[in-house]
Amino acid sequence: MDFPAELKRHVARVERGLDQFVPRADTRPARLHTAMRYSLEAGGKRLRPVLVLAAAELFTGPTLEPDGEATIPKSEIENRKSQIQNPIPAAVAVECLHTYSLIHDDLPCMDNDDLRRGRPTSHKQFDEATALLAGDALLTHAFALLAENYPAPLAAALVRELANAAGSRRLIGGQMEDLLAEKKSDATPEELEFIHLNKTAAMIEASLVMGGLIGGAGETEVATLRQAGRHLGLSFQIIDDILDATADTATLGKTAGKDAKAGKTTFVKLHGIEASWSIATKHSVETRASFTNLYGNKAFLGALVEMMSCRSR
Amino acid sequence: MDFPAELKRHVARVERGLDQFVPRADTRPARLHTAMRYSLEAGGKRLRPVLVLAAAELFTGPTLEPDGEATIPKSEIENRKSQIQNPIPAAVAVECLHTYSLIHDDLPCMDNDDLRRGRPTSHKQFDEATALLAGDALLTHAFALLAENYPAPLAAALVRELANAAGSRRLIGGQMEDLLAEKKSDATPEELEFIHLNKTAAMIEASLVMGGLIGGAGETEVATLRQAGRHLGLSFQIIDDILDATADTATLGKTAGKDAKAGKTTFVKLHGIEASWSIATKHSVETRASFTNLYGNKAFLGALVEMMSCRSR
Repeated sequence: MDFPAELKRHVARVERGLDQFVPRADTRPARLHTAMRYSLEAGGKRLRPVLVLAAAELFTGPTLEPDGEATIPKSEIENRKSQIQNPIPAAVAVECLHTYSLIHDDLPCMDNDDLRRGRPTSHKQFDEATALLAGDALLTHAFALLAENYPAPLAAALVRELANAAGSRRLIGGQMEDLLAEKKSDATPEELEFIHLNKTAAMIEASLVMGGLIGGAGETEVATLRQAGRHLGLSFQIIDDILDATADTATLGKTAGKDAKAGKTTFVKLHGIEASWSIATKHSVETRASFTNLYGNKAFLGALVEMMSCRSR
Repeated sequence: MDFPAELKRHVARVERGLDQFVPRADTRPARLHTAMRYSLEAGGKRLRPVLVLAAAELFTGPTLEPDGEATIPKSEIENRKSQIQNPIPAAVAVECLHTYSLIHDDLPCMDNDDLRRGRPTSHKQFDEATALLAGDALLTHAFALLAENYPAPLAAALVRELANAAGSRRLIGGQMEDLLAEKKSDATPEELEFIHLNKTAAMIEASLVMGGLIGGAGETEVATLRQAGRHLGLSFQIIDDILDATADTATLGKTAGKDAKAGKTTFVKLHGIEASWSIATKHSVETRASFTNLYGNKAFLGALVEMMSCRSR
């Protein structure tokens, strides 16, 4: 498999999906829809929506070439193939949700960031009120997409998964504790784990699980994907902390060194750079270990996870 | 029917539902959940969730006493009665959504209001970041409630209805145009109608439709409820504009006269007080006319609509 080419192909599918499943910029009110698209079209790696596609096509993708011993009867695979739903609306929903969280996170009352993905943040490009509403609208649109594009039982399961991952106990809860941690310089390792598990891992978990649900994953497979997503999310966030401490703004496409500047407790501050790398690596190993239990065309998903776990090292 | 007693009973059901279906204030992170409950528990008239209950029990309520000619076979009514779902989680979802829109609307970058329902607004009581996140969390929780508490086909229909009413073309679109209208003193009647239809009527429509869906309303009945909600929402918002121009802060429980102070174009500014009352009355008449097409126990819903259309006149 030519991973860079496959990744590019998947990202292109996501970008086309964003164009297809988000209202046009000139939809009334044009300022709102322009702002929604401005942030969605700012590029970014599209990791979460690509995880949705990769998980959805794990068992049923057009290029299914099982590596490993078949534990699912061939008839069941054929059955799944015939029932697979289009994963694109869910991938777009996940990207809408992620983008909303970034827009709100960048607001002056939160991280107060001027730069995101190398461009002015939404409230800099437009104004605070427009950025606030664009974020609200992207969050709401994510749920509309799921409810409108899938058969009811799948739609309800996808809404449940996304609403829980993005809710007050997980994504938003993680953001709240992250803010509280910024105000004190002595956050504990346990508090930091709560933040990482919820602010970052929740949506990575949900991306894999939602893809799995669309691809017809059974209960055990969903549990495996959730477990893998959890470890992947933790390694991903720890690496993010490391990069914030070591890379420059041009490389990151967002303001570098802001954690240290804010006096914020990060993995790097608590454990040092080397120990942080080794904890990140431990979670990457766990992610890979989870995947060995999955049957299916894991080549692309495996390489994607590898890439997410090994950025810039 | 003793309307005040019935209204009180319905409001009490909503309040118990809020307590039951929203995470406890001490749920981690406690600051976030405390802020969510602070705004939810600020009182308010609970009109939208009570509309959900009233519409849900229109055809199937325990006190069904049809007034008017039966156009639905008795067997069908019995069938509906046996299938009715608990409308409380949907009523709570609608109130969570409404409360999120108020919290975000009160933020400094929006209306910058210090007072809501006679108490400090969320960002005054907590801080801007907490208010932002509490709003985000209430919006997300609304969809979780619908996905978790109804059979899949109903859940998907409810999510679709709420996400569309609250989305970028309706509620949020109305808020965006409302903000833009504030910046210019010459908004047109057409622009004002767009704002009222979307900022206010959308959620009142959705409340009636969601209740109807839960109560087993058919397509024609849903269309009637939507039509009624539209007119009710318009009359309700016009009266709101009139009250803002004529009542005092203590009566309103929120800052009075702020529309005029902001130089904002309102119905009153465009049409004058008397003409505004007569347009509001026209919409109230249309609302009542829609209801005559409905079969069922309309006494409570009818009286509720009457009350909403005749506040303080």
